[in-house]
Amino acid sequence: MQMIKQKRIYMDHAASTPVREEVLKVMMPYFSEKFGNASSLHAFGREARDAIEEARAKIAKLINAEPQEIIFTSGGTESDNTAIKEITFSNRDKGNHIITSKIEHDAVMQSCKLLEKMGFKVTYLNVDKNGIVNPKDVEKAITKQTILVSIMNANNEIGTIQPIAEIGKICKAKGIYFHTDAVQTFCKLPVDVKAMNIDLLSASAHKIYGPKGVGFLYVRKGTHIGPLLHGGGHEFGLRSGTENVAGIVGFAAAAELAHAEMTSENSRLKKLRDNLIKGILKIEDSILNGHATLRLANNVNVSFARIEGEAIVLHLDKHGIAASTGSACSSKSLEPSHVLLALGLTHMQAHGSLRLTLGKENTEKDIKHALSILPKIVEDLRKISPFKK
Amino acid sequence: MQMIKQKRIYMDHAASTPVREEVLKVMMPYFSEKFGNASSLHAFGREARDAIEEARAKIAKLINAEPQEIIFTSGGTESDNTAIKEITFSNRDKGNHIITSKIEHDAVMQSCKLLEKMGFKVTYLNVDKNGIVNPKDVEKAITKQTILVSIMNANNEIGTIQPIAEIGKICKAKGIYFHTDAVQTFCKLPVDVKAMNIDLLSASAHKIYGPKGVGFLYVRKGTHIGPLLHGGGHEFGLRSGTENVAGIVGFAAAAELAHAEMTSENSRLKKLRDNLIKGILKIEDSILNGHATLRLANNVNVSFARIEGEAIVLHLDKHGIAASTGSACSSKSLEPSHVLLALGLTHMQAHGSLRLTLGKENTEKDIKHALSILPKIVEDLRKISPFKK
Repeated sequence: MQMIKQKRIYMDHAASTPVREEVLKVMMPYFSEKFGNASSLHAFGREARDAIEEARAKIAKLINAEPQEIIFTSGGTESDNTAIKEITFSNRDKGNHIITSKIEHDAVMQSCKLLEKMGFKVTYLNVDKNGIVNPKDVEKAITKQTILVSIMNANNEIGTIQPIAEIGKICKAKGIYFHTDAVQTFCKLPVDVKAMNIDLLSASAHKIYGPKGVGFLYVRKGTHIGPLLHGGGHEFGLRSGTENVAGIVGFAAAAELAHAEMTSENSRLKKLRDNLIKGILKIEDSILNGHATLRLANNVNVSFARIEGEAIVLHLDKHGIAASTGSACSSKSLEPSHVLLALGLTHMQAHGSLRLTLGKENTEKDIKHALSILPKIVEDLRKISPFKK
Repeated sequence: MQMIKQKRIYMDHAASTPVREEVLKVMMPYFSEKFGNASSLHAFGREARDAIEEARAKIAKLINAEPQEIIFTSGGTESDNTAIKEITFSNRDKGNHIITSKIEHDAVMQSCKLLEKMGFKVTYLNVDKNGIVNPKDVEKAITKQTILVSIMNANNEIGTIQPIAEIGKICKAKGIYFHTDAVQTFCKLPVDVKAMNIDLLSASAHKIYGPKGVGFLYVRKGTHIGPLLHGGGHEFGLRSGTENVAGIVGFAAAAELAHAEMTSENSRLKKLRDNLIKGILKIEDSILNGHATLRLANNVNVSFARIEGEAIVLHLDKHGIAASTGSACSSKSLEPSHVLLALGLTHMQAHGSLRLTLGKENTEKDIKHALSILPKIVEDLRKISPFKK
């Protein structure tokens, strides 16, 4: 497939984002100059330690947490694995039941599957046709054996925002730990871990114009949990391994910038998103997946009848537009999205999904460009489709 | 304590190293330009994927492995945790016994302690007074229940090089998995995983002038092992989480450079090391810890009677020399080094340890400077020591 030479338009910000210039600039000294191991006692070590503690305090503030409640990890997947597995292992004397939803990220989902194999019981809650978890379903699913509820803040494929404050309230009242995967929402939606009764929260830097390979797990003070990674006892004993100083410093810088711009950027993105959705839905036999308004400002997810999302992605790519069918993590799987199936879509509808996730660099011009190309791609693919109307 | 203004001399390369210029240069495009998620289907994703696969092939070649046997991780600790825990969990039907040594890094040691709590049996082999594991002891410790032997390639505190080829041979003959923690040796000592019968090997980038936050675990084809991190199924299903592309690319570049320079740099460092040891041992009541020749080319570890290593480190730091008492990871612990105690040192001797680990930037001038300062520091500290000769 020949590439057409032109400006590349990136519309896959839910998969990853470029490190922004201001962030890379603050990271730079921590590669070759201030390169100490933060556990070392000497000046090189102390300057690394100071940088980490400053980053920790900055990030804590953004979610109304205490600095010592922020545990730096290698990313969202490690944070989710730590939360799900280690809360469960550490509290097995209190019960053997976990509640989650059918549309969680694979990092949560596969951790739960492992726990099931180990004898724990997991309830995977249904979502409604828009992808929303009903807090009443959470409440009903709670038993005396329940030790953890894990419901994501917003979904990575369809952008649906969950009622996590209500779920947090229920968990708090029942004395059950509440974890939320906030990988898609940290610095995109306001979070107050105290007000929202969140005990554990996962986040990742590379979704907010920070570097890949760094994330954090917020762990409320007093939470009974052990480490996933054992060793030198870094991160208050909850995550061993030499800290990725440059990554951590970059994460904090990216978070502060994204947090400061959250309101204005969300309002700008919502306009772009809604124009894009409006334009796409003019294409025959297309549907919007997810909720129309309880939705991340940058997320568009649609299904086109009778064609493959993967083929659309490849054709858009030929035109210089980067998109996805859903989660990047499962892009190589032939299975239809578990998220879309949970909404009640047929296998054909789920296979025909396209996700466009907007970001800082995208403009109205990009939206127009995408809309000028997409209808023809869909039309052409339908012509060669084995499925007829 | 006031800092004396002068060039800072870094002699703590076993704790961490600066990212070298050539490495940072190849990493740079992967932050803000080639920033795709390597799992994405579009051009941004493909260029990230290509970069990772190129890095994987480069690294594999350096240890005579196949590319698909290299699993990228967040660092040495994660690699060690994965090897120890996941080999054990995946092979519990074959046995419940692990063999390791008393001088392993905490990432191995604490993983073993966890397994003991879970009901597995662990043999911690003694070492001789120089810190060497006797392969015959490995052989004698093997029972029908043994599923894994984990012996480090060289020790992080005392630099002692272990007879891993002999141990590998024994494990191979008995059909037992052999893991080696090569965090301190990758690209510093020649490794051939096939010839040495190594099934699993841990390494880290930031010890060889690469970035922090990235490592790999070599896993021999056909090894029965599951993932520590569950999720999207990255890294052949053995390590989920969006790949740290810049880090991985930097790791491969650092490894190729270090590998190419290994012989000449080791010979240069050995001279510096031996001059430093010779100079230090002129100080009254000082001893060399570890083996005189079966020792990493950059490692000096000595104990001074009647004084605290930590005090020496702080005084050296005041003079601009960065050193450590032993492992950076446990620098905040008040316990004496488990490695030095295993050599048979008394608590006082173990508390009086100083580790100087040399690197690329160090010159003969640095050695002379250190030797011009150290005797006075030791003398002054002994004057105020509560312990008298």
